[in-house]
This record gives sequence, C-alpha cells and structure tokens, in this order.
Amino acid sequence: MTLAEVDTPALILDLDAFEGNLRQLQASIAGRKIMLRPHAKSHKCPQIALRQIALGAVGVCCQKVSEAEAMVEGGVPDVLIANEVVGMTKLRRLAALAKQAKVAVCADDEGNVKDIDAAAREFGVVIDVLVEVNVGANRCGVEPGEAALKIARAIAACKNLRYAGLQAYQGGAQHMRKVEERRTAIAAAVDGVQRTLALIEKAGLPRGKVTGAGTGTYLFEATSAVYDELQVGSYIFMDADYAKNDWTESGIPRFEHSLFVWTTVMSRTRADIAIVDAGLKASSIDSGMPRVADFPQAEFLKASDEHGVIQMNGSAGFTLGDKLKLIPGHCDPTVNLYDHYVCVRGGRVEALWPITARGALW
Amino acid sequence: MTLAEVDTPALILDLDAFEGNLRQLQASIAGRKIMLRPHAKSHKCPQIALRQIALGAVGVCCQKVSEAEAMVEGGVPDVLIANEVVGMTKLRRLAALAKQAKVAVCADDEGNVKDIDAAAREFGVVIDVLVEVNVGANRCGVEPGEAALKIARAIAACKNLRYAGLQAYQGGAQHMRKVEERRTAIAAAVDGVQRTLALIEKAGLPRGKVTGAGTGTYLFEATSAVYDELQVGSYIFMDADYAKNDWTESGIPRFEHSLFVWTTVMSRTRADIAIVDAGLKASSIDSGMPRVADFPQAEFLKASDEHGVIQMNGSAGFTLGDKLKLIPGHCDPTVNLYDHYVCVRGGRVEALWPITARGALW
Repeated sequence: MTLAEVDTPALILDLDAFEGNLRQLQASIAGRKIMLRPHAKSHKCPQIALRQIALGAVGVCCQKVSEAEAMVEGGVPDVLIANEVVGMTKLRRLAALAKQAKVAVCADDEGNVKDIDAAAREFGVVIDVLVEVNVGANRCGVEPGEAALKIARAIAACKNLRYAGLQAYQGGAQHMRKVEERRTAIAAAVDGVQRTLALIEKAGLPRGKVTGAGTGTYLFEATSAVYDELQVGSYIFMDADYAKNDWTESGIPRFEHSLFVWTTVMSRTRADIAIVDAGLKASSIDSGMPRVADFPQAEFLKASDEHGVIQMNGSAGFTLGDKLKLIPGHCDPTVNLYDHYVCVRGGRVEALWPITARGALW
Repeated sequence: MTLAEVDTPALILDLDAFEGNLRQLQASIAGRKIMLRPHAKSHKCPQIALRQIALGAVGVCCQKVSEAEAMVEGGVPDVLIANEVVGMTKLRRLAALAKQAKVAVCADDEGNVKDIDAAAREFGVVIDVLVEVNVGANRCGVEPGEAALKIARAIAACKNLRYAGLQAYQGGAQHMRKVEERRTAIAAAVDGVQRTLALIEKAGLPRGKVTGAGTGTYLFEATSAVYDELQVGSYIFMDADYAKNDWTESGIPRFEHSLFVWTTVMSRTRADIAIVDAGLKASSIDSGMPRVADFPQAEFLKASDEHGVIQMNGSAGFTLGDKLKLIPGHCDPTVNLYDHYVCVRGGRVEALWPITARGALW
C-alpha cells in the first residue's frame, strides 16, 4: 500500500527519519560514560522500545504502571517508572510486574515508601526505589538536600526495597527557547543533585544512580559528570514545539520530524482557507497548533474537535481530497490518540506498529 | 464496587445527574414542533445514544463514518453524519452502512456530491444528502443563498441521492458567554437559512429539513420556526467551559455536571500544592483547565502529560492518596481519551459503558 492510499486521519511514522534520529542521538553520546533509558511515555509502543534497546539503551522509562505492563508484555526487560506510584492497588500490580522484569520506581513520601515495601513483601520481591528530587520542574519530588536524604534513608530501612539513586528530571527546562537558559537551568539542577549526593555519601548510603534529562537538554546532563542515565523521549519524533527551541551551539543534533498526522482537505468553500479532517481529536494542541509539512507558507490557524482550519497564504496544492502531512504541536499526547503507527518508507507502508500503551493512564 | 475503590485516572459518569440532564432537555422542548437528534461525537457510546432515543430522539448525529459505524453496530437505527465525507474509501463505507441503517450526510461541493452518488450507485442504495450552509461558524459549508441552492440542485440531479435539507450549525455561537450574543448570532443564522429556503422553494425543490443547534443556543433554534431538528451534544455532561456561559433568561436549563475525571493526589511535597495523577492525557485542556469538583477554592493550575498541579488555596482534604473529581474543561475530547465510562450512582459503580467510537477518526 502506498502512503497516498492510507485513509485519514492516520498517524504516520517516517521510518528513515525515525531511524536517523535514533542513530543521531547515539552518535551524540558515543564515547561518554552515560546510559540511555528513553522515555516510553512518548511512543507507548514496545516495537519502538525494542529498537532503542537494540541500539544500546539499557531499558525504558514509563510514567504509569499500566504503561510499564504494556512494555514488559511487549518484551522490554527493564523499566523505570520515573514517577510516583500511589495506592496499594497500583503498588500490587507494580510488585507483580517485578516478578517478570527489572522494575524500579520513584518516591517522594515516607508513607508511600512503606506502602511500596508492603507490596514488595506481599509479592516476595525486592524493588529498586529512587528518590525524586525537585530540580526545578516544581511538580513531584522533594527538595534537594536533607529532605531527599530523609526519603533515601526511609527506602534503605525497608527490607524489601533497595535504595537505587536519584530521579532528577528538570522538566521545566526542556522547552526554554534559548540554549543558555537551558544550560543555566541544568547547571542549577546539577548543583542540587551534587548537594544531595554529598549528604547521601556522608550518611553511608550507596550512591545509586542519577537519572533524568530530556530532549531539550540531555547533552548538558550527559557532560555534567553527575548524571548516569538519560531519559530522552521526544528526540525520536521531534514535534513542532521542540522545533521552536534554539539548538545552535547546544551540541544537540537537530532531530528530524518523523511523526505526522495524515489528513485530507475536506472543504474548500472559502478563498485561501482549507478545512482538513484532523482537529484536536487527531493532533493535540496543548503546546500549539500543528504545522503543515511541505507548505511553509500555509498556517494551521485553529482546531475544533474534528476539523482543522488552514490558511493557505497563497500556497497551491490544497484541492478537495488532497492529503497533507501535519507536524503535531506535541508528540506525546498526539500518539495517545491513536491505536497504531502507520510506518512508511519511501512513500510505501512498511509496517503497522500497535500503540499498546495508548490510554494506559492508571 | 464503590467509587472509592475505582482506581485512577478513570472517567466517571454520575448517572443521576446524567439522567436528570436527559430529562431536563426533553422537558425544555416539550410541546414544541422540533425533533431531537443529539450529537454522538460527545459521548461516542451506543448505550448513551439508545437512552437518548428511548426518551424521544429520532436518531443521532456523528462527525465521522467510523463513528456512525460504531453507532449502527451498537443498535442505532438512524444516523446523520453532520459533516462532509470526502474520498471514495470513506464514501463506500458510508454507502455500505446505508444498507444497514438510515444514513444521511452533508455536502458543500459539487464534485463531492457526484462521488457520494457514485458510491450509492455502487452499493445500490439511495442516500439522503443535506447542503451544509455556513451560518457563521466559518468552517465547512457554502454561503447561504445561491451557493447553497447550487449544491441542492446538484444533489437533486443525482439518481442515487435524495436532497434532504440544510445543515446549519452555528458552532461559533455556542460558547459566546452572553445570552444576547448567542441570541443575535442565531438570529443571523436563521436569516441565512430563511433566504436559502426561499430560493429552494422557488426552484421547485422539496423543502427538506433544517438541522443544527448546540447546547449553548438550542432553544433559540427551537423557537425559530425554521429549524426542524436539534443537534445538541454536551448537555448530557456539561463541561467546565460550557458552565462559564451565562444561562440566565436564556430559557435553557442549567444542566448539571455529570462527567468527571477521577484522580488521586500523588505528591504533596509543597505547601498548598497537590499533584494529581491526571494530566492532559486524562482531561483535554483545549478549552481550559479542569475544575476541582467539591473544592471551590482549589484551582487546577496546569497540566503536563501525566500530572495536574492543584493550588489548594487553603482547602483541606488533599492528603496523599485522596481521590478527587475533576470537571473536564471540554467533555468531547476528554471522552475520546477513555475506553469506558464508569457509571456511578450514590457512590456505587452500577455499570461500565464502553466508548466504542473512541479514536474513531476516519
């Protein structure tokens, strides 16, 4: 089947661009003492995870137990839930999963640590737990320093847990547009991590690993001499929002757009306006509208549930029935709207990869 | 199972509030010569469609052929695709569906009309086609008047099509906050419809029906003496954005919130801030953040993919592990993130209704 024959809307993965991004990232960290643990929240697809592992990744990150279950079910042997898991229902599933694969989780609360231990005991497993440290994202995590040490001690005191290190993701830095802003934010994160590591060493706890980083900053963490593991996710797809970052002199490669929403022009009754069949149920607009690929003048003005409004700004090629590629504003929640990737190479469909963790919220 | 036992995030339907909304809408149009054809794009669930029909609806609207297929499969006998369907792949599916149920579709292009006719001929069916008229939403549709007449004539000239009337949905009016703005917008829409109807009558074509309206304005269409059918969708759920409309003296009932995202407090490391496990993959933020039900002081500040940040503003009751109800900003795309409704009455789970048209984009 050719791409032209694929009905719309559909989620298209350009395999050449995707594979190029995988290789570019590996090349950019080659020779460095850093491990790669890509975030599966971006792709939710074991086929992609296994390709990342084949190129050298040690495993993947997930945000949810159900996402981790989908990855393990799909053959991934090593999953870090880079997030807190709260409540015995989920923790029992986590402990059950630890019987099938290497599983780790984060914590930022002593009561939660006790719950993880209870679940691990119930299932007869030992679970690796990392302390999540707030290094500037201001979401989950305790402050660097004494607060983090307190959680680390609580973990180390539990019989069925192993203190495994620090989760230190500076999510707030990833989309800062200027390289220097991102570099400064990561320097501050590194400082918080170092202060915490000093306390942990002084307390006689094992160092464990330091894990974090995203596509916008990962080379700064990789060269920090503090981070051990990178959690990059979006580099495989490169969405329209990430493309707005300045990359010059960051050392980070300019990854190619590989993920597209395939859409049809479905109404052409007004001059210079084309209505397409992909709205906000086909491409998440939380980080801005999609861009129209191959038509730099055309502007995707707005999305309603099932429609997109494109101002052509004089571009030709928007005849009723024409199919177009949109570059999603934000790849992660866009992927979460689809059941599979239509994988394309040279204009031909090469595979369908199921997005088995689509909707895996819990 | 009690609601408290339901794991999070989950999509909760409060059956008492939902059934109350169904009855309130019926009561508000009782005795009027108007038909009800609720929009299934909001709920994507045959169980809900069949309940709407049982209370008097003539059928449902859909936006996509795949949505219509899910409704017919679920037992709905009459579906209007209140949208254009472009391309022979989809039109053949539409024609095939017309063998199983009463199916109608909209058009705004003569070439598309010919394609619908070709598909209908191929499958040996006659399909009802309405002309979509742009009555102010500025999305699909031709202008009222001569342009609409031209499409109506094209439909009437096709052997396997029946000209069935006008699709005249003023989508741009639904969320105008002031009642008078909405009333004025619908008066203008009615004017455009009347001008078009006069031309259609003069041309000797059958009148057909006039269909449109949404939750924000439907009583204005219902009392216009021009509209025959109402396409309300959101009234069953009532999202946070619709709740911002002024309803006073509109005559439209103040529908109750019946749809909630059930979420857990998963991190509490900062004063006055609670992190919950529902982000933008659990509640669409295209029309604003969700509201926190039962805690009027608390404010949902922002959503990332898997996290929500709530500023408690002094509210008690946000202990780690506590479960909360969020009122989605926009119900339609939020429903599209889930595989089923957890239907609850009096704090107990009464049913799970599958969202069979979830992800039905094509």
